[in-house]
Amino acid sequence: MYGLIGKMRAQPGKRDELVGLLREATGALPGCLSYIVARDPADTTAIWITEVWTDADSHKASLTLPDVQAAIARARPIIAGFEVQIETEPVGGFGLPEA
Amino acid sequence: MYGLIGKMRAQPGKRDELVGLLREATGALPGCLSYIVARDPADTTAIWITEVWTDADSHKASLTLPDVQAAIARARPIIAGFEVQIETEPVGGFGLPEA
Repeated sequence: MYGLIGKMRAQPGKRDELVGLLREATGALPGCLSYIVARDPADTTAIWITEVWTDADSHKASLTLPDVQAAIARARPIIAGFEVQIETEPVGGFGLPEA
Repeated sequence: MYGLIGKMRAQPGKRDELVGLLREATGALPGCLSYIVARDPADTTAIWITEVWTDADSHKASLTLPDVQAAIARARPIIAGFEVQIETEPVGGFGLPEA
C-alpha cells in the first residue's frame, strides 16, 4: 500500500470551504482505500489529509481524473500552501478494506 | 471526531516486531473508526500511526483496556521514542464508517 500524510494551509477564512471541496473530491476513486480530511484544532487555517492507496500509481492516476482535476481547479485559489507531505507504507490496521 | 497522527521510533532492527504488536492491539476497540499503521520508507526505524476516534474520551478510555495495556507492556521495550503527536479534528472523507 501507499500512504500520504499532508498538511495543507487554506487562505484565511477559507478553511471550511476548502475542507468541503476536498471531501467532495473523494468519492470512491480507483485504488483509494482511505482519504480522511481533518481540521487542525491548534491552527485555524491548517488541514491534515491522510490517505491510503493500493499503490503509488493509483494515487498518481487519480490526479488525472476529470472530477479530480475540476476539484483541484476550484480549490487552487483558496489554498495558501502545503507544509508537510510525507509518504508512508501502510501495512494494515483497523478501518481498511481487507487486502 | 478526534484524530491523531503520530510518529513512533522503534529500537534498531525492531520495527517489524513493533508494527506487528501495534496491529494486534487494534481489533475493533469501542469508538475507534480507523487505526492505520505504516512504515516510513525513508527512515528504517520510524512508524506512522494515523487514528480516528468518535471522540477524545474513547481514545483515552482505550488506553485502560486490559488488551491494550498488555500490548503496551509488550511494546514498551522496543519503542525508542515518539517524535510527532498531532491532534486533529477529522470531518469526513472516504473510508470512515457513516457517522
